[in-house]
Amino acid sequence: MTTWKSNIRTVVPYTPGEQPKQKVIKLNTNENPYPPSPLVGKVISSIDLDSLRKYPDPTCDNLIEALAKYHSVDKSKVFVGVGSDDVLAMSFITFFNSKLPILFPDITYSFYDVWADLFRIPYEQKLLDDDFKINIDDYSKPCGGIIIPNPNAPTGVAEPVEFFEKIVAAHPECVVIIDEAYVDFGSNSCIGLTDKYDNVIIVRTYSKSRSMAGNRIGYAIGNPELIKYLSDCKFSFNSYTMDTITLAVGVASLEDDEYFKARIADVIKTREWTKGKLAELGFSFPDSKSNFIFAKHESKDATYIFEELKKKGIYVRHFSKPERIANYLRISIGTDEEMQQLIEALRDIL
Amino acid sequence: MTTWKSNIRTVVPYTPGEQPKQKVIKLNTNENPYPPSPLVGKVISSIDLDSLRKYPDPTCDNLIEALAKYHSVDKSKVFVGVGSDDVLAMSFITFFNSKLPILFPDITYSFYDVWADLFRIPYEQKLLDDDFKINIDDYSKPCGGIIIPNPNAPTGVAEPVEFFEKIVAAHPECVVIIDEAYVDFGSNSCIGLTDKYDNVIIVRTYSKSRSMAGNRIGYAIGNPELIKYLSDCKFSFNSYTMDTITLAVGVASLEDDEYFKARIADVIKTREWTKGKLAELGFSFPDSKSNFIFAKHESKDATYIFEELKKKGIYVRHFSKPERIANYLRISIGTDEEMQQLIEALRDIL
Repeated sequence: MTTWKSNIRTVVPYTPGEQPKQKVIKLNTNENPYPPSPLVGKVISSIDLDSLRKYPDPTCDNLIEALAKYHSVDKSKVFVGVGSDDVLAMSFITFFNSKLPILFPDITYSFYDVWADLFRIPYEQKLLDDDFKINIDDYSKPCGGIIIPNPNAPTGVAEPVEFFEKIVAAHPECVVIIDEAYVDFGSNSCIGLTDKYDNVIIVRTYSKSRSMAGNRIGYAIGNPELIKYLSDCKFSFNSYTMDTITLAVGVASLEDDEYFKARIADVIKTREWTKGKLAELGFSFPDSKSNFIFAKHESKDATYIFEELKKKGIYVRHFSKPERIANYLRISIGTDEEMQQLIEALRDIL
Repeated sequence: MTTWKSNIRTVVPYTPGEQPKQKVIKLNTNENPYPPSPLVGKVISSIDLDSLRKYPDPTCDNLIEALAKYHSVDKSKVFVGVGSDDVLAMSFITFFNSKLPILFPDITYSFYDVWADLFRIPYEQKLLDDDFKINIDDYSKPCGGIIIPNPNAPTGVAEPVEFFEKIVAAHPECVVIIDEAYVDFGSNSCIGLTDKYDNVIIVRTYSKSRSMAGNRIGYAIGNPELIKYLSDCKFSFNSYTMDTITLAVGVASLEDDEYFKARIADVIKTREWTKGKLAELGFSFPDSKSNFIFAKHESKDATYIFEELKKKGIYVRHFSKPERIANYLRISIGTDEEMQQLIEALRDIL
C-alpha cells in the first residue's frame, strides 16, 4: 500500500542568513543600520486595539494609493505583498508558466532557483563574466521569462536602464522582472519602462532602504493588466496577507521622505569609506551600488575570515555555492562605528 | 509571434466578504465582536522601533514555543503562517501532489476549490446531506487528500472526534487536513489524533476566537515529519512571512487565557440567544457550534433579506453558489446589542 509520503512535495528550502540572538555586529543580511522613521513609531503606538478584531482591508487601498503617489504612477499599476519575496514568489506562479526555461544569472539572489524548483518551472542560469557583469547576448533567445536584480545581489553591480530596455523590448513572448531591492542605494530605477512596455514588472522592498525588514512589505509596479493577473493569483492564495499594522506603517514610511533620503545618504557615505579601507587591506570587489560590498581578499580564504570575524562577534555572509564565489564575503553596510570595528577586526585577522 | 499573455496563470480569485468603510453592523466575515486581550495592546505599544530594521526570527521560535506550551505538544509539531489561509495554501502545495483527486464537501470553506484550481490539484466535492451532514462513506475510497473543516463552514455543523478518526485511519495513502477555524466555539478538537496518526494535520486561526483577524496568524499541529515538509515548502516560498510585531502579539494573546475564555463564553451565550430569536421569526438553521448561524427563512428570499438588511446598515453574508444554499444567510455573532438590532431589523423586514 502506498503511504502519504509518496505525494509530498519535497524541496531543499532557502537558508536565510543567521539571526543570532546574542548581541553581535550583524553585517550578514543587508539590514539597514538605522531605525525606521519616527513616524512609523508614532503610527504603531496609535493603533486602535479594537480595529485588530476585524480583517484588514484586502485591497490594501491606503498603502497602494500612497505608493502610487510616491512613484507618480496610477494606483492600478501597484501590487503589494509580504516582503518582496512574497511579490516575487507570486510573480513566478503568475507569469512563469511556459514550457521554455526562464533565465537568470548564475550568481544572483539565491531564491530564484528555489522558487523555480518549488513551482516546477524550468530554468537556465546564465554565467556572469569574470567582472560579475551580465552578458546581454545570453538573454537574447525566446524564453519563459527573465528575472534580474538591479543592482544584482550579492555582487552589487548595477546596469543602466537602457540595458534592461533592450532585454524587455526583445521579449514580447514573456514577462521580464527587474528586482530593485537595492536600487535606492545609488542606481537608476526601471519604473519608467512600465509606461512603454507591457511585459515588464519592477519589484521593490521596504526591507533595505526603508529600514523595515521586520515589517515585511514589498511591492511591484507594472502595467495594470499584469498587476490584475498578479492580484487575481494573490487573492486565490490568501486574500488577507497584509495585516492592519503593516498597512499603516507602510504608508507612514512614505510620508517621511526627508528622513528616508538622509539615511540612504548616510549608508552610501559609509559604503564608500568602507570600500577605501577594504582596498587598503588587500580586498578587491566590484563597484557596489547596494548596501553591501562583495569582497575577496588577495591572500586569505573567505571561510577563514568569515570564521575569525564570527569569533569576534561580527557576522558577514558567505555563500559556498556557486564555487566561483566561494572565496567572497558579502558585507552589509552598518553604522560608521560598526564598519570601523569591522576594519579593525580585519586588520587583526589578516 | 506569441505574447507573454499565453503563459499567464489566469484564475478566478476568491471574493472575500465586503469590508465597508462606513460605520455599519458587520456580521458578514465572522469577526469577533470583542477586541483582543489588553495584553496584545500592551505589547504593541512597547515595540522597540529600532528592532524593526532587522528581519524577524524566521523560525518564529517564540510563537511556536508559546503555541506548543498552550496545546501541550512538542514544538516540533507546530507550524505558523500568515492566517490559516497561508497555512492551508502551503499545506495544499506540500501535501496534495497525487494524481488522484482530493476530497472535500460541496458546501464548505470556499477557498478549497480556489486553491485546488490555482495549484492544479484534481478534486471532487462530496455532497452534504439535506441536514448539511457529511456522509462518511463518501470519504472511503483512496484519494489524493482530504480536507474538512470542523465545525464546517458556512453551516456551523460539527462532528465528533471519532468521526474524523475513522477517516484518518482509513487513509494511510494521503494527508487529512482538519480545519478547526471555529472549533473554540463549542466543538471538540482533533489535536489528540496527531499523537496516534502521522497523516493528519490540524489547522487553527487567531482570526475568530482570538479576535485578531487584523493580525493574520494561523497555525498547524501535526507530526514532526509533516511539519518539517510544510516548513521546507514555506521556507522555499518566503522565509520571513511573520513580521516582528505579529510574532509578539501572537504570544501575548496566549498569555491571557482568562480573557480569551470569557469572550468565547460571551459569543456562545449571544449565539444561543440569537438562535431562539431567529426561530421565533421563522428561520431554520443547523445547530451551529461556530460564531455564526446559517439560516433560511420559511417564506422570504435570502437575497431580499440580505438587501433589506444592507439598507439598514447591517451586513450579513450571502453565497449564491452552490444553488442549494442560495436561500441561506450566514450571520456572524456580534455583541448582544448588535444582535438585538439585527432581530429588530428582521422583524421590520419580514
